[in-house]
Amino acid sequence: MKNFVSILMLLLSMTLFSQTAKIEPPFWYAEMHNPELQLMVYGENMSQYEVRFSNTIEITDIVKTENPNYIFVTITTENVSPGTYELQFLKDNKIIFTESYELRARRENSALRKGFDSSDLIYLIMPDRFANGNPDNDNTDDTVEKANREEPSGRHGGDIQGIIDHLDYLEELGVTALWSTPLLEDNEPIFSYHTYAQSDYYKIDPRFGTNADYQRLASEMHQRDMKLIMDYVTNHWGSKHWMIQDLPTKDWIHYWEDGEEGFQRSSHKMTTQFDSNASEADKEACMNGWFDTTMPDINQKNPLVLKYMIQNAIWWVEFADLDGFRVDTYSYNDKEGIAKWTKAIMDEYPNFNIAGEVWMHSQAQMAYWQKDSKIGAIDNYNSHLPTVMDFTLHDAIVVMFAEDDQEWDKGMLRAYENFANDFLYPDINNILVLAGNHDTNRINEIYGADLNTYKMVMTLIATVRGIPQVYYGDELGMLGNKDVNGDGDIRQDFPGGWKGDPINAFTAEGRTAEQTDFFEFSKNLFNWRKSKSVIHTGKTMQFVPQNNVYVYFRYTDDSTVMVVINNNAETQTLDLKRFQEVIKAHKTGTDIISEAQISLENTLRIDAKTTMIIEF
Amino acid sequence: MKNFVSILMLLLSMTLFSQTAKIEPPFWYAEMHNPELQLMVYGENMSQYEVRFSNTIEITDIVKTENPNYIFVTITTENVSPGTYELQFLKDNKIIFTESYELRARRENSALRKGFDSSDLIYLIMPDRFANGNPDNDNTDDTVEKANREEPSGRHGGDIQGIIDHLDYLEELGVTALWSTPLLEDNEPIFSYHTYAQSDYYKIDPRFGTNADYQRLASEMHQRDMKLIMDYVTNHWGSKHWMIQDLPTKDWIHYWEDGEEGFQRSSHKMTTQFDSNASEADKEACMNGWFDTTMPDINQKNPLVLKYMIQNAIWWVEFADLDGFRVDTYSYNDKEGIAKWTKAIMDEYPNFNIAGEVWMHSQAQMAYWQKDSKIGAIDNYNSHLPTVMDFTLHDAIVVMFAEDDQEWDKGMLRAYENFANDFLYPDINNILVLAGNHDTNRINEIYGADLNTYKMVMTLIATVRGIPQVYYGDELGMLGNKDVNGDGDIRQDFPGGWKGDPINAFTAEGRTAEQTDFFEFSKNLFNWRKSKSVIHTGKTMQFVPQNNVYVYFRYTDDSTVMVVINNNAETQTLDLKRFQEVIKAHKTGTDIISEAQISLENTLRIDAKTTMIIEF
Repeated sequence: MKNFVSILMLLLSMTLFSQTAKIEPPFWYAEMHNPELQLMVYGENMSQYEVRFSNTIEITDIVKTENPNYIFVTITTENVSPGTYELQFLKDNKIIFTESYELRARRENSALRKGFDSSDLIYLIMPDRFANGNPDNDNTDDTVEKANREEPSGRHGGDIQGIIDHLDYLEELGVTALWSTPLLEDNEPIFSYHTYAQSDYYKIDPRFGTNADYQRLASEMHQRDMKLIMDYVTNHWGSKHWMIQDLPTKDWIHYWEDGEEGFQRSSHKMTTQFDSNASEADKEACMNGWFDTTMPDINQKNPLVLKYMIQNAIWWVEFADLDGFRVDTYSYNDKEGIAKWTKAIMDEYPNFNIAGEVWMHSQAQMAYWQKDSKIGAIDNYNSHLPTVMDFTLHDAIVVMFAEDDQEWDKGMLRAYENFANDFLYPDINNILVLAGNHDTNRINEIYGADLNTYKMVMTLIATVRGIPQVYYGDELGMLGNKDVNGDGDIRQDFPGGWKGDPINAFTAEGRTAEQTDFFEFSKNLFNWRKSKSVIHTGKTMQFVPQNNVYVYFRYTDDSTVMVVINNNAETQTLDLKRFQEVIKAHKTGTDIISEAQISLENTLRIDAKTTMIIEF
Repeated sequence: MKNFVSILMLLLSMTLFSQTAKIEPPFWYAEMHNPELQLMVYGENMSQYEVRFSNTIEITDIVKTENPNYIFVTITTENVSPGTYELQFLKDNKIIFTESYELRARRENSALRKGFDSSDLIYLIMPDRFANGNPDNDNTDDTVEKANREEPSGRHGGDIQGIIDHLDYLEELGVTALWSTPLLEDNEPIFSYHTYAQSDYYKIDPRFGTNADYQRLASEMHQRDMKLIMDYVTNHWGSKHWMIQDLPTKDWIHYWEDGEEGFQRSSHKMTTQFDSNASEADKEACMNGWFDTTMPDINQKNPLVLKYMIQNAIWWVEFADLDGFRVDTYSYNDKEGIAKWTKAIMDEYPNFNIAGEVWMHSQAQMAYWQKDSKIGAIDNYNSHLPTVMDFTLHDAIVVMFAEDDQEWDKGMLRAYENFANDFLYPDINNILVLAGNHDTNRINEIYGADLNTYKMVMTLIATVRGIPQVYYGDELGMLGNKDVNGDGDIRQDFPGGWKGDPINAFTAEGRTAEQTDFFEFSKNLFNWRKSKSVIHTGKTMQFVPQNNVYVYFRYTDDSTVMVVINNNAETQTLDLKRFQEVIKAHKTGTDIISEAQISLENTLRIDAKTTMIIEF
């Protein structure tokens, strides 16, 4: 009898209840600026059903693709109150099964959220390598790669709890915004700590924590007046993404017929995006090539894909209460597609910010990608991207401080010449300024852990126009050389992030004397910067470097900061008359580094390889 | 009695006839587009006089400056017929003396003259070093520096007659336009062959010949369908110019109070012209600094100066029947002033051409200076300059052919990346393309007189978009290294230009075997180019270089040229499928270098360090 009941139940469930649908976004928000919502509905042979909502929610479009397991249902949420609604799946006018769908209420002022800006200092971490707050999630049943701290390319166990545990440290350092490399699930069998081959766009990797943990991180940061920036990947998904394994449409990704399993590596010739002489073949080889075998290149020309990614991004803003995005490999995307993606998000959140990784080596080429660019306009292009990254400054930073001589274009002249091109950018304050990130050699490695050089680098980063970004551990003098030792070397564990670490650099007591020197300088500089609107949004006046000494001013009507970087191996004495037009009638200023009063009347003496930041 | 008459005559002449005035322009032309004419009238204490014309020529403005020896008289020539008119100088309403002033008739269609363009191939010479056609003018009474052919920085005796004597040579080579470095008088005691320190803007240096000789050169060239381009210097005058020695106004030049005799060398930081962060001090240090002690920097902000130079340039167009200007150190001028100068000339001759020396190392910065630049517009600037020079391509050319390896940005990739920025230029056909000039190391010196490399260089120069410019003697493999031996070394005498030269490379019989190899290749290539509108104005499609092989196409609707430059040290075989979008259905083409028929169907084999130019 027991068996009979079981079998009956089983049969019932197979007919009435066996079918379920996976719907993405898993829920949505009422009263969005754009009321249109595309539901991706997935399940075995899903396209056999007709769909409708039980209430008055209007379905405006239904798209079925060549894969019968998908239906894309577009609805309008206009005038639909928050609540849970029933989506019905019918065959021959009979409801076969239903799924509930929730529209949540938005946070107050969600639409007007203020994104990160030039008043911020961004700290970049790789979450697997920062701190292991919860050793229980180092390995999970549903993820393939297991933790192995001995493996430079393996997972080390860092997680969201580890970040939350050390927000005090970031606050003490003077950080106001956090950019973590991706936290979404990456279920590759190796190199998954990298997390740019994401396998689920709606799920935090369980080895980092839960979606709720990510919400909690944002909330904890907001309580400290800090901002959270999500690293978003539009260009490629992970090969283990469930949709990649069962493609909704063949053209969801760029599949290379000649390539093995559709793979052809990108040519990385990003200039083909605007080169008026470029061939179509080369454009495709760059934009449609894959970053790696594990990263199928996503086709943003397909409107279903694009809508999916726009909504996913907006979903995370609402869900996690984000303050910005950093977009990976921005310039490798279909350029019209990524512009639409960017504009859709900015239309939803007009005060938000998005920084695109546009890694080029010419200011004109980078300026092309910034919102309302006059250079983009030559090509009838507008990316709508508020923030680009100053990679040409980075190119200069990694060589110029080792250049002592006075050649035409060496030493501090490199920095000067970078800023000489500022006029090419439509929005000079929305430029991310960096001395390194998770893809570059560590700045302290390049300069042999030299504290003086570090101080010059950070003085520059923290006082020029734009948004400074610091890579985790640089504030401690951390080393790493990817050319020799591989990527893992520039992504080493933060000392003290793991129980039993011999050094705990999160605390003053735990730091070595050398780490203390690096940290204290950084802390003082970054905290000073916090309140200086003259640095955040003041104008710049720069002077041609002489004898490898670079002098520039940030100024407003009532405040001036004079920055002097002496990259010369000898003490230098500057004739201040040269700077009269900006020093004006001021007689003295305060060097915020030495706290000394400085006369501005005749000459200024500055020691070799040091900086002064003089306020008046 | 004889003595008495003499004395009487002398006294008479002192009262009635002693005073004369020097007037510039020395004559003018009727029916110009701009009827306004400013006469610079010079003579001892000239400002004591009132002036008027005897006929109805209207004086619209009279400016007297702090120097009493000058009057600037503005008249209108509207509706004034060609003829000679009398300018009267009065005191107390009495005519003290008169000067005649001529308005000449213009050549037919003078206003619509067509300047040089991308159908031309420009040959650049230094006239002192090309050929000595008239040994009688090697030294003249009114010029200081005497000929000394043993002195690399001295005058060697080359002249206009020498150019005229060898127009056949230029024609045979395939040259269609000649740019000679300045021919106006330079009366410096040393380095005067350089002729950029000009001492009279209305006079050909007598060691080169006469103004009439210059007219004759133009006329001889026009009979051969060749064009003459004058090298014009707006930025500075020679210290020996008579007006510099008796300045009309103190601000005629930029006089540096702190400098010795007003001199301060330019900082050469041309980016200060547009750098939104630049200080006024640095702008002045670049733009108002002098090129050398012998070259006072001219102040184009002074409207008297500007008008003087506009008229002088137009005078030479009319007088010598010019086909274009090359403007020296264009970007060192006051940028508003030089834009007015350029516009005034182009307004007068709408089909004319002017090439500005804008020697920068970024395409955006060069594009800034071209007429109607969108990059200039960012800064609200329009130079009105039709043609700029491709110095970034030159930067590439002088290194890339020695680069064998396959690094990210080395070898032929440098050329590719240069053209990837073409979209920044408003007029891609009006870009001067060069492998060297009188200020750079000789291209054949750089590549060790290697014929194969020369062929690659010239193939590139002659087939890419823009206006090719060849430096005299490069077509013979001439050498020269300025870094080691000074400027004279890159400006050696053309072999055969002087009687008794051991080699006469002007003739086939006179050339060495090596010179013949260089010359014959050049001649074939340049003459082929003459009639190829697909090269002059066709579109470009380029492909990312692979294995140091650069492939690009010039194409129109009915004509295609495929250029293959194999800079690899090994023979290469190209899969032609990659170029399908431009080869289309074509099955064969003709290599204009080897004259072989080439199959376009499968693969293309190309020898190491060679080029192919395949027409179809």
